[in-house]
Amino acid sequence: MLSRRNPQLNSHGELIHLLSTEGLPRAVLTQILDTASTFLAVGEREIKKVPLLRGKSVFNLFFENSTRTRTTFEIAAKRLSADVINLDIARSSTAKGESLLDTIANLSAMQADMFVVRHSESGAPYLIAQHCAPHVHVVNAGDGRHAHPTQGLLDMYTIRHFKKDFTNLTVAIVGDIVHSRVARSDIHALTTLGVPEIRAVGPTTLVPDNLREMGVRVCRDMAEGIRDADVIIMLRLQNERMGSALLPSAGEFFKHYGLTPEKLALAKPDAIVMHPGPINRGVEIDSAVADGRHSVILPQVTFGIAVRMAVMSIIAGNDA
Amino acid sequence: MLSRRNPQLNSHGELIHLLSTEGLPRAVLTQILDTASTFLAVGEREIKKVPLLRGKSVFNLFFENSTRTRTTFEIAAKRLSADVINLDIARSSTAKGESLLDTIANLSAMQADMFVVRHSESGAPYLIAQHCAPHVHVVNAGDGRHAHPTQGLLDMYTIRHFKKDFTNLTVAIVGDIVHSRVARSDIHALTTLGVPEIRAVGPTTLVPDNLREMGVRVCRDMAEGIRDADVIIMLRLQNERMGSALLPSAGEFFKHYGLTPEKLALAKPDAIVMHPGPINRGVEIDSAVADGRHSVILPQVTFGIAVRMAVMSIIAGNDA
Amino acid sequence: MLSRRNPQLNSHGELIHLLSTEGLPRAVLTQILDTASTFLAVGEREIKKVPLLRGKSVFNLFFENSTRTRTTFEIAAKRLSADVINLDIARSSTAKGESLLDTIANLSAMQADMFVVRHSESGAPYLIAQHCAPHVHVVNAGDGRHAHPTQGLLDMYTIRHFKKDFTNLTVAIVGDIVHSRVARSDIHALTTLGVPEIRAVGPTTLVPDNLREMGVRVCRDMAEGIRDADVIIMLRLQNERMGSALLPSAGEFFKHYGLTPEKLALAKPDAIVMHPGPINRGVEIDSAVADGRHSVILPQVTFGIAVRMAVMSIIAGNDA
Repeated sequence: MLSRRNPQLNSHGELIHLLSTEGLPRAVLTQILDTASTFLAVGEREIKKVPLLRGKSVFNLFFENSTRTRTTFEIAAKRLSADVINLDIARSSTAKGESLLDTIANLSAMQADMFVVRHSESGAPYLIAQHCAPHVHVVNAGDGRHAHPTQGLLDMYTIRHFKKDFTNLTVAIVGDIVHSRVARSDIHALTTLGVPEIRAVGPTTLVPDNLREMGVRVCRDMAEGIRDADVIIMLRLQNERMGSALLPSAGEFFKHYGLTPEKLALAKPDAIVMHPGPINRGVEIDSAVADGRHSVILPQVTFGIAVRMAVMSIIAGNDA
Repeated sequence: MLSRRNPQLNSHGELIHLLSTEGLPRAVLTQILDTASTFLAVGEREIKKVPLLRGKSVFNLFFENSTRTRTTFEIAAKRLSADVINLDIARSSTAKGESLLDTIANLSAMQADMFVVRHSESGAPYLIAQHCAPHVHVVNAGDGRHAHPTQGLLDMYTIRHFKKDFTNLTVAIVGDIVHSRVARSDIHALTTLGVPEIRAVGPTTLVPDNLREMGVRVCRDMAEGIRDADVIIMLRLQNERMGSALLPSAGEFFKHYGLTPEKLALAKPDAIVMHPGPINRGVEIDSAVADGRHSVILPQVTFGIAVRMAVMSIIAGNDA
Repeated sequence: MLSRRNPQLNSHGELIHLLSTEGLPRAVLTQILDTASTFLAVGEREIKKVPLLRGKSVFNLFFENSTRTRTTFEIAAKRLSADVINLDIARSSTAKGESLLDTIANLSAMQADMFVVRHSESGAPYLIAQHCAPHVHVVNAGDGRHAHPTQGLLDMYTIRHFKKDFTNLTVAIVGDIVHSRVARSDIHALTTLGVPEIRAVGPTTLVPDNLREMGVRVCRDMAEGIRDADVIIMLRLQNERMGSALLPSAGEFFKHYGLTPEKLALAKPDAIVMHPGPINRGVEIDSAVADGRHSVILPQVTFGIAVRMAVMSIIAGNDA
């Protein structure tokens, strides 16, 4: 999907779009995490605003509905003092038969500065980045099964916050990895940041063998998967997959792969438990774990705002 | 529903959430009305903005749709310079099976400062106030049949504006009181502010005898109900109740309880007529009354913005 | 529809509402275009904001859905630093049976400064302008088949930008003119600005003979219609008209009236091609033309923001 030159970087190697964690150099990942850490403090101030994007127009283009993700981007953009325009794309011109690229050309002509794009088709944000005007920056807010890079980056922020160093960690990702753009973005970023052991844990239907090509260790057995792990990333089990050929039932899944206090006891004593949310209590995670002392699920949300502020401010500052 | 200590007040007796007019001390009610009166002037200025909530994030959480009420809160928050996030809750995570408290925990983690909550279930804003982070303030924008405290407060503002003193008034509330959170909020506030005679006027199905426990005089007869009243509060008759067992027909209701110029002539010559809107012309109120010289229905709307600004600025200034 | 005195102007002849290009004096049209030209530069600045409407409340009242038009007004208002309130009117009080004028009276009481109104019924913005409070200004964002004056004005801006002088031009408007509020607004403005030849091009069903009463030359033949034209305005063919009694088929229409490079060769060598968008590629316009060197469709969008900023800032500055 990547063209020969990384479309996310300009000729000086600076970030101009955020499309995927794949292909992002470690220096850029670190720049984003370092910048996010300065923004985290902004959220705790009396006045939670900085003027970095004042007068910029940020368009939320959610071709696929996601109130939660859209909200985090809207908050991040407003804390940077941007003007935010939410487009109800489903009800708009695309419905009148206008092509994606015509819609993008029109919105660019409104002197947009940034598009935050969620789309059900993998690659849509790349297409937009390739065709939009040079002054417009694109952030991928999730495309098909492909990538969800800001979620990947907030996961890296969370891990760094609690574990400091990536180069001695064991990270287990558990559940429906094959359909998960979050897992894919996590694996690329963890690899670049030097995590020595990444495990993908789940049944063959959800964790196919060819995931090994991404450099991960595939574990069919939950005990093997989380033993001595420093970080456990639980994925959301999509309700629509339940009872399909892929999965027998929620109860069956929970029995084998649901994270309970008993299973968690196999991990390192100071292991952290992460989840991109929204959680399915009793399906992929037990309430005692979700609300327990290992859980960093709510800090992930807080870090997510700071990471999105970092991404938006960095790309807005770099010329194509 | 109230826990032992009033959950709306901190240990210094200061307002930290607005959940109900029930249990609010007269001093707090008066503080809100006095503050609103300073904000009323802001709305008449060339630049209708004050920086009191600058950099604060106000989330409109409307689990039940109400464009009008949401709009008044949005305007009030923006005139206080807050960042406003409108969440289309019906389309969001709760639809994915996430619990109310998980949704709230997530939004709190986004460093929200205030939740404005409308919910079809009585008590939902209390539950949220009890479980949200200490830095978050909750305003009830209407919960089930229970309370609609900002409407109650704007009604008090309107009465004080036109009548100055509460302690010599007769106030008649007419119509569907049993289903009305507005009536309930009005009755609590009127009682605390010292109104000596509060009348509830309507048929047994809409004004049950046990309303007397709230200290109101129940009147089945409209003439008795509004005779010599200083203030008449007409309630909206919900269309969905018409033709049910509770109510024969709109025409029948209007004949007995609809406010016409003839019936209004029974009230004091300087009586004011109020209505929370939207009005049903010819159902609970005659157009000649709604548009006549006794009507203060549109000033209520203007006062409502100032009252909501007052509530938000007061609670944002008090620590839990 | 116009009352004796032009309801758009105050007693000093200054613009207080924008309802139609019909009846606007040339001096007012020129004032809008000149002001827009100063705002065009704002959109190219690092910080795309001016404080002219700071603290003003602009309400987008879209009784008929149009994400694209609403977005352009929202951007324009935010670049003027206004607070923008988007009302989802379809889901709001009007749905509860409230009349248009009661809704307007209520919103006025919230101390609105401006209503941007889109309505499926011709004349609705006039009704609102006649009944709203004196401090409120109304902008027609499209009413029925009647008028779409900001589109008309941005078309004039585009023509002036590329052609400098109106008084020696031939302008051809092609397609479904009878249903087009854009065409109507264009014809009035072009006439007032002194364009000597305006042609309406299309079949009898879409371009009836009585259009001649507006002073236009009616052409049934496309070659006759665009020969030696300086400006060609293509109109969008509404999908819902296809296959009806009015129109045989999209293919048939394109054959006769679709703008192809071959037909465009009949116009002046430096002719410009305009379209209000969204375009139907291969129905009214060939992609080679839409994306070709004569096309100014995307500049129209950019100019549209500046023109809307001009209209809003001018009317907000004039007292009723």
